Amino acid sequence: MADRSVFIVSDRTGITAEILSHSLLTQFPEVNFHTRALPFADSNEKVDDAVRQINEAGELDGARPLVFATFVTAELSDRVQSANGFFVDLFGTFLKPLEKELNAESSHTVGHSHGVVDPDRYTSRISAVHYAMDCDDGVSIDDYNRADLILVGVSRTGKTPVCLYLAIHFGLFCANYPLTEEDFADGELPELLRPFRRRLFGLTIDPLRLQQIRSERRPGSRYSDVQQCDYEIRQGQAVFSRHSIPFADTTQMSIEEIGTTILQRMQIRRELG
Amino acid sequence: MADRSVFIVSDRTGITAEILSHSLLTQFPEVNFHTRALPFADSNEKVDDAVRQINEAGELDGARPLVFATFVTAELSDRVQSANGFFVDLFGTFLKPLEKELNAESSHTVGHSHGVVDPDRYTSRISAVHYAMDCDDGVSIDDYNRADLILVGVSRTGKTPVCLYLAIHFGLFCANYPLTEEDFADGELPELLRPFRRRLFGLTIDPLRLQQIRSERRPGSRYSDVQQCDYEIRQGQAVFSRHSIPFADTTQMSIEEIGTTILQRMQIRRELG
Repeated sequence: MADRSVFIVSDRTGITAEILSHSLLTQFPEVNFHTRALPFADSNEKVDDAVRQINEAGELDGARPLVFATFVTAELSDRVQSANGFFVDLFGTFLKPLEKELNAESSHTVGHSHGVVDPDRYTSRISAVHYAMDCDDGVSIDDYNRADLILVGVSRTGKTPVCLYLAIHFGLFCANYPLTEEDFADGELPELLRPFRRRLFGLTIDPLRLQQIRSERRPGSRYSDVQQCDYEIRQGQAVFSRHSIPFADTTQMSIEEIGTTILQRMQIRRELG
Repeated sequence: MADRSVFIVSDRTGITAEILSHSLLTQFPEVNFHTRALPFADSNEKVDDAVRQINEAGELDGARPLVFATFVTAELSDRVQSANGFFVDLFGTFLKPLEKELNAESSHTVGHSHGVVDPDRYTSRISAVHYAMDCDDGVSIDDYNRADLILVGVSRTGKTPVCLYLAIHFGLFCANYPLTEEDFADGELPELLRPFRRRLFGLTIDPLRLQQIRSERRPGSRYSDVQQCDYEIRQGQAVFSRHSIPFADTTQMSIEEIGTTILQRMQIRRELG
């Protein structure tokens, strides 16, 4: 397997460059990438140090490193390009054509994308995270009237991570309620959820996968017994069907995929915070 | 202020395209963008529907929409480009040059970037989220030996959102411990934190900003009193200095900036999950 050094260099967090590099490089599974992040390279000295590291890695590898760069300061962007690397320059590639298309100058303001742009929106993301924490796992149900969304499903179908993801990135107020055996007694929707039926979204999962996940947590317990998992999953799905609650099977899905699916199915307009 | 429609179109989640569009478009604050996400456009029918929506928006606006596209299926990528839009095509722009540079074909495999690639790594992200939940706010201190990182700071300096962000995106096991007045009595580091001094990172904030945040939560209380906020912040910073705990001032920073700063300062190698 071939080896290759990769640098993420930015005068800000470099998160955009990192995500793009991740998307592009996972398309080359036969190459063994070694990634180094050099964020906040916001002075000549720091950029020169980045150049030095890139050149050293290239000499060691015998191949020039890939460099994913996002600099909003043009001089620093020019300066880093003196390194002997293969550059994927996001802003350099796309900003000029966009300026032309929009007939507007870009502000080139440092920190607009992953900094605090709009303090109100930012505060709402933080509030959303605390809301998700407070309303996790069926707690604080009195606060459900503030929810944009309430995830329901049996234990360990992915409710908590998805709630937190939607809170952090989109500022959504997302609660979650675990379906338990008590809820299955009469096949009805738990009474406290009924006023919020339109905000409910169900998560389900393959029973064998659930058994595996639960076994890591409580091995050999009734909780992680395969028949118990199978029973809960069937009962949970029956509740979703009976009450027309949209749901997704999370077995093969990442947190991001589940989140995106929910926003799309619930027709919630997503907007990054 | 000019208006312009923006479409995020992808045969997967479209998250990469969305983040790039966010980074680029925040550089044009004088344009009022209306963004619509069309994820999971993975069939000819869905792509044709996207084309129709793009063309309709363009006619309504009197200007062609910006289209941020990430398709791993080449035929669908070609198909969407029949729309009358200004295309920012991430994979189309960068994959070919990368293939040449790496002397390797890209796999064009759907779902490699925000799907579940490596189940073990993925499970560890989920475990990290649950760890952060379990070890939030000074709870489960017996579990601190499993922590990659322990954030310390007075209430509402941003510890919880940052822990969760690092867990979701990087699979880091991140606990957080709130410094309270009891901890300030002797100016020493709380005893239970001492074994983990090298894993501690402090968060501080401007006292006035803290007062504002706490007032939203408990207005008129001692907790949100400006002198109390000022006192706690000064004491907290004194603890950081006395025990050489690296720390950051979160007043002007986003969750992503705080997270990136911590990874850099603590020399933790970040790797997207």
